[in-house]
Order: sequence, then structure tokens, then C-alpha cells
Amino acid sequence: MGVFVRYTPMTVTETSSVARDGKAQSITLGQTDPLTLDSGEELGPFQVAYKSWGQLNADKSNVVLVCHALTGDQYVTGVNPLTGREGWWPLMCGPGRPLDTNKYFVICANVLGSCAGTSGPAEVNPKTGKPYGLDFPVLTISDMVRAQAMLLDALGIEDIFCVIGGSMGGMQVLQWAVDYPKRVFSAVPIATTWRHSAQNIAFHEVGRQAIMADPNWHHGKYYDHGVTPHAGLAVARMAAHITYMSESGLTSRFGRSLQDRSGVTYGFDADFQIESYLRHQGISFVDRFDANSYLYITRAMDYYDLTINHGGILADAFRETEARFCVMSFATDWLYTTAESRNIVRALNAVGKQVSFVEIDSNNGHDSFLLDEPEMLEIIAGFVRSAAEQRGISTDDG
Amino acid sequence: MGVFVRYTPMTVTETSSVARDGKAQSITLGQTDPLTLDSGEELGPFQVAYKSWGQLNADKSNVVLVCHALTGDQYVTGVNPLTGREGWWPLMCGPGRPLDTNKYFVICANVLGSCAGTSGPAEVNPKTGKPYGLDFPVLTISDMVRAQAMLLDALGIEDIFCVIGGSMGGMQVLQWAVDYPKRVFSAVPIATTWRHSAQNIAFHEVGRQAIMADPNWHHGKYYDHGVTPHAGLAVARMAAHITYMSESGLTSRFGRSLQDRSGVTYGFDADFQIESYLRHQGISFVDRFDANSYLYITRAMDYYDLTINHGGILADAFRETEARFCVMSFATDWLYTTAESRNIVRALNAVGKQVSFVEIDSNNGHDSFLLDEPEMLEIIAGFVRSAAEQRGISTDDG
Repeated sequence: MGVFVRYTPMTVTETSSVARDGKAQSITLGQTDPLTLDSGEELGPFQVAYKSWGQLNADKSNVVLVCHALTGDQYVTGVNPLTGREGWWPLMCGPGRPLDTNKYFVICANVLGSCAGTSGPAEVNPKTGKPYGLDFPVLTISDMVRAQAMLLDALGIEDIFCVIGGSMGGMQVLQWAVDYPKRVFSAVPIATTWRHSAQNIAFHEVGRQAIMADPNWHHGKYYDHGVTPHAGLAVARMAAHITYMSESGLTSRFGRSLQDRSGVTYGFDADFQIESYLRHQGISFVDRFDANSYLYITRAMDYYDLTINHGGILADAFRETEARFCVMSFATDWLYTTAESRNIVRALNAVGKQVSFVEIDSNNGHDSFLLDEPEMLEIIAGFVRSAAEQRGISTDDG
Repeated sequence: MGVFVRYTPMTVTETSSVARDGKAQSITLGQTDPLTLDSGEELGPFQVAYKSWGQLNADKSNVVLVCHALTGDQYVTGVNPLTGREGWWPLMCGPGRPLDTNKYFVICANVLGSCAGTSGPAEVNPKTGKPYGLDFPVLTISDMVRAQAMLLDALGIEDIFCVIGGSMGGMQVLQWAVDYPKRVFSAVPIATTWRHSAQNIAFHEVGRQAIMADPNWHHGKYYDHGVTPHAGLAVARMAAHITYMSESGLTSRFGRSLQDRSGVTYGFDADFQIESYLRHQGISFVDRFDANSYLYITRAMDYYDLTINHGGILADAFRETEARFCVMSFATDWLYTTAESRNIVRALNAVGKQVSFVEIDSNNGHDSFLLDEPEMLEIIAGFVRSAAEQRGISTDDG
């Protein structure tokens, strides 16, 4: 893993006052040895913003790494200071939750390229003193994982007891198991895939084209113009959001119900609730997310293919991993389908890995992993508890 | 059906020199009695551009009405003079084809609101001398069908032997059978639905928002500014196009294949073939379609719900129809699924109508109805031939 900048208290900054909910911190990495990206470019120094909950035990055997999705961030639980709202996985993570912060040292880092404190296109390029924009290097999921490994190295953490995440988080989970086969004890990839499909790429390309078509985008230099390509980013979010929900879920939640009116208006207002809902999703998203980050992270997802360095054979990618897996999919997820999860399970089986698989019968499509799905929570709690026993982590409830 | 302007040679204009491929014509309707739309607004006079093939027989019993889809037009077969390319259904319509122009008088009219000669938002409002823009009234599928009925009235045609169409064309087919229960002898709704679902509306809303977010749209008055919202319309087309293809079809046709390059470029060019293909779909569409028409027609589709005037009961909508039906769906069509076609079939069965149903096992998703699907062509040929026998239409092949 090369020589990375080691953790020193001086490089760590408290960036938030929500310490009662966990520690929000930021670290400078790659100062002496930059991160070599898959593109060949070198990145450094760069910031990684992260947050942790619970205590690292004496033998550092209780580390749970949570990986967030495309538009997620390090604020897994507790109040997100950027939005003032609850984190994105409070039912999964917290005292007594499946990722029990009374037992585990839970850590989540904002991915490289994102916009919640970790270096990305909106951050100032230390070499120019101006925002990177499109001068930020294009990344891969592997690069994101490598930056997380540098963070753990800097924190003096070698082994990950459990790496867990949904959607793009699940891609990172699998990439961790493949790229760091000895460092991961257990892995929980949820609602994810082993490579982005043509349809996945197509939806992302629509979003990128919507952003880049917005005249406010200014070829990525909108920071200099005091504007943001909010209209394009909202359209991108709307298109993506449809893929996060199931057809049946949309029908049962919205159907053809009208929005605060007794009949259609024969116009282009949001007559239907689904229209109003989608518009809200688009508008509220642009307040919290950088458009260039959206370009970079969708690109990393499109480039994602676990088989790339393994001769196109998925099983070969998993050959060296020492992790045990809990693979989970949702029946109505049409973005990353159960069939893709089954491909992962088959590949793991083919090289004799320990894997359990469950498809959750939810109506909520891809977004199910973020929602109150009791079966999901129960199964993951059981898997993590069992893995903790195998790992010999001392726990209160034995 | 009220009193409509009757067909007179004076109101018919040859608009094309492709008469050898059929007759392309345009008619002015609603001059004395305007068309009362579902919105309550009145439209008239207005143009309907249509094309016909074959000869009307003596008792006018051989009329086949073809209904086109969202971005289609009246150029079913032969060269489309607007694009210079082949029409959209040459395998279905022509001498010896399922809709055999040697036997039937086949007619197709550009729908109201569209942009291939029939009145729509891009056409000049006779009252102002300027393009309608958003002053064009918002339409429904029923309104489109009503305009077609006015056209047939003007041509002196009462009965339709067969009304056929896919996607939005299929919606018109069903609407014909419901709104004119005695005029339709047989009906072939293909790859369609009985009401637009929340997911269907959602995809259309994304497209509309993309168009309306384009500064060139100018609240629909772009005609006055000498620009078109091409970027927004291209994004709308790209998003829609994904829904026309199946996930498996995209995977087998494109997968993760790269576009004329040996490796990814770590940039935002179209590295993948699917990206290049989608961009081409978007760019080529804006040359042939009016952005406001796209708004109007998608809106009509979103408003489509056959049960509206029938107490919410689909079977009740079909109670009066005298048509026999051939309902057809495609296994990988996720836009208008087989389940929706089955709902139509069940409703028809519930009120004792004659209906045959087939799901075609194609990998091409929704677009299958436009492609060379031998089973589709064979089944429709058989259905039409059998209906012709029941109707007592004299045919060459008996």
C-alpha cells in the first residue's frame, strides 16, 4: 500500500460541533506521497472528511467502515450539519443498531470527488488557489477505496472488521474485498452490482448531458461565474430518482393522484403528485450537491467493473479475499437487480468463499436499503453479530 | 359526432411529391364547427396532415386506420419527405404486408399537437398570424381521436375495418374502440397501456423539465427568438429512449463496449458505445421534432386514462364496443408491460368481448413493435386476414 502520510494530531481538524453524535473530522493526505490514481494522475495533498462513532478497541479489531452512495456523505447518523437533517442510515447505525456504536468503531469517509469536505472538483486546488472544476482528475471506485485505505493507514488502522454499504457503497465494499483481500474480515454489499451495465451508464449519461447542457455550467467553471447549473442538475437528479424507486412502489405511493386539485389543469404545472414529488427531489438536491461532483462520481460508477484487472472473470477477482460476505438485494430494485447480486454470489461460490445471500421482498426498489426494512436490519444485525463472534470481538450482549 | 366540415376537394392540398408511395394530403377541419376539446376549449380551423395507401372499396369497408406513436407521423411506409428516410412501419404496411395496401385503404394522420403538418404549437395560429406556442390548447388522446374522426367524416368514411397502432398509437386504438364503439370492427393495440402510470408520467416529466429548463425555450416562444431548445429536447429524447429499450437488449447490443478506443479516457467524452448511441439519438431527434410538440404530446399521454369517464372501471369503458381485439405485448417491454396488456384483456373478457392476446418473446423492449419481429408480423397478418373474412371484405387471396 505504499508509504502514506501517517496520522498526526496536527493534520486533524474538528469541522463540526456535533461531536455528541460522533466525531466529524478532516485529514490532509498525500502530502509527501501523492495518491496515484487509476488514470495515472497523481493527487496530493488532498482532504478526506470523515466521521466516526464509538471507540476503537485495544487491538483495533472492531472497525466498521461504512461506504456511502452517489449522493451520500459521511453523516451516517445524527444531524448532518450541512443539511440540518438526520443522517442517511440512522436505523442501521447507532447504539443497539445493527452497526452498534456501543461495540464498534464505525467510520465513514466522504468519497474522493464528492462535496462534503473531501477533495473534489468544487474544492480549491492548492496549486492554483482556485476551484479545481474539470481540472480535478477523473476517478474510479478503486481510487475512492485507495483514499479510504490511506485514511485508515493514517489513523493506524490495518484491519477492517466489517465493510458495508449500499448502491455505490456496495461497489466500494466489493472493491475493498478485491483490492485489499487480507484487510477485510467481513463484507456486506447491498443493492449493488459488480459492473455498471449499459442501462446504468445510459441513465448516468442522461444526467451528465443535462448538467453540461445547462449554460450555467460554463464547462465546469461555474464557480468563477457566481452561478450553478441548478436546472441541469435538478433534471439529472429527477431522472436518477426514478431509477431508485420501483414501478409498483410509485404506483402504490402516487398512482395517478392529483396534487392539491380536483381535476387536471390542461397545462404544464405539476398536476400529478408524482410530478410535484420529482420536482421537489430535483430542487432540493441542488442545494446540497455540487454539479461537477455529480459528473465525477457518476463517471467513477460507469467505469466500475470488478473484472477489469482479473481477465474479465468475476470469480478471479474474488480469489484472494479472506472476507466472508453477506450479499443482499431487493426484489423490486431494477437499477441493480437481484440477478446481478446472484452473479456476485455465484462468483464467490466458484472460488469457495463464505457467502450468504438474501433477496428482501420490498416494494421500495433500489432505495430500500435506505429505508426502514426490518428484514434487512435483522439479517444484517445477525450477520454482523455472528462475524463478531468469529472475529472474537468482545461484546456486551455476548 | 356533431356537424363537421365535409370533405371537399378544395380543402385538400397535395403537400408532397411522393404520391407513388401513397397520397400525402392535408385537410382543413373545424372551419364552421370547431373541435371541442376535453379541456373545454374550442379549436378551429385546424389542419390535419395525413397519408393514404391503396384504394377505398365500393362499400368503404376496407379502411385501416394506423395510429402513430409519440414521435411518429403519417409517413408509415415509403420515403418520409421530412427526413428523407424510410417510414416507420414498412414491414407492417405495404403490398403483401399484414396491412396489405393491395386490399385495404390504409390511412394515417399526424396527431393533433404534433409537427408533421397537423396543427400544433409550432403552427401559425390563424387568429394571430404567429406560431401558437403555449397558446395552443392542451390536448388529450381523446382529442386526437376526435380529430381523426372528423377527418374520416370529411372523407365520407363511417366505419373503420381495423384500427392499429403501438405505444401511443395503441392508446388511440383503445380510445377509438371506447369513444366510437360502433365504428370500429377490429382493433390491434400493441405495446400499450390503458392509463399512464406514475412511472410513465415521471419519465415524461423529466423530459418536459429538461426542455423547459433550456433558456432557448423562452416559455414556448422560441419561434420568435430564432432559436430552439435543442439541448433540452435532446436530453428529453435520451431519457425517453432508455425506456424504449430493454436492459438485456442494451447489454447484448452495447454492454460495456468502448466507442472507437482501446481504453477509457478518464474524461467526459462518450467513452462507451451506449453513450455515443444515446447522444446520437438526442441530437438527431432535435432536427425532426418540435420541442413544444413534445411537451403537448407527452402531456396528452400522461392525461390518458381510459377509465376516466367510466367510473374508474376499465371493463365499463369497453362495454359498448363492437370491436374484436388482438392485444399484443412484448416480454421485455418495461415501459408498457405485459401486465398492463393483461389488464386490458381481462377487462375485455369481463364484458364478453372477442379478444386474442399474445406476448411476443423479444429482447428489444418497447421498441419491438417498430422492428422486424416476425412473430408479431405473422400474428397480426393472421388476425387481420381473419377479421377481413368475418367482415366479408373481398380479397385477392381469399
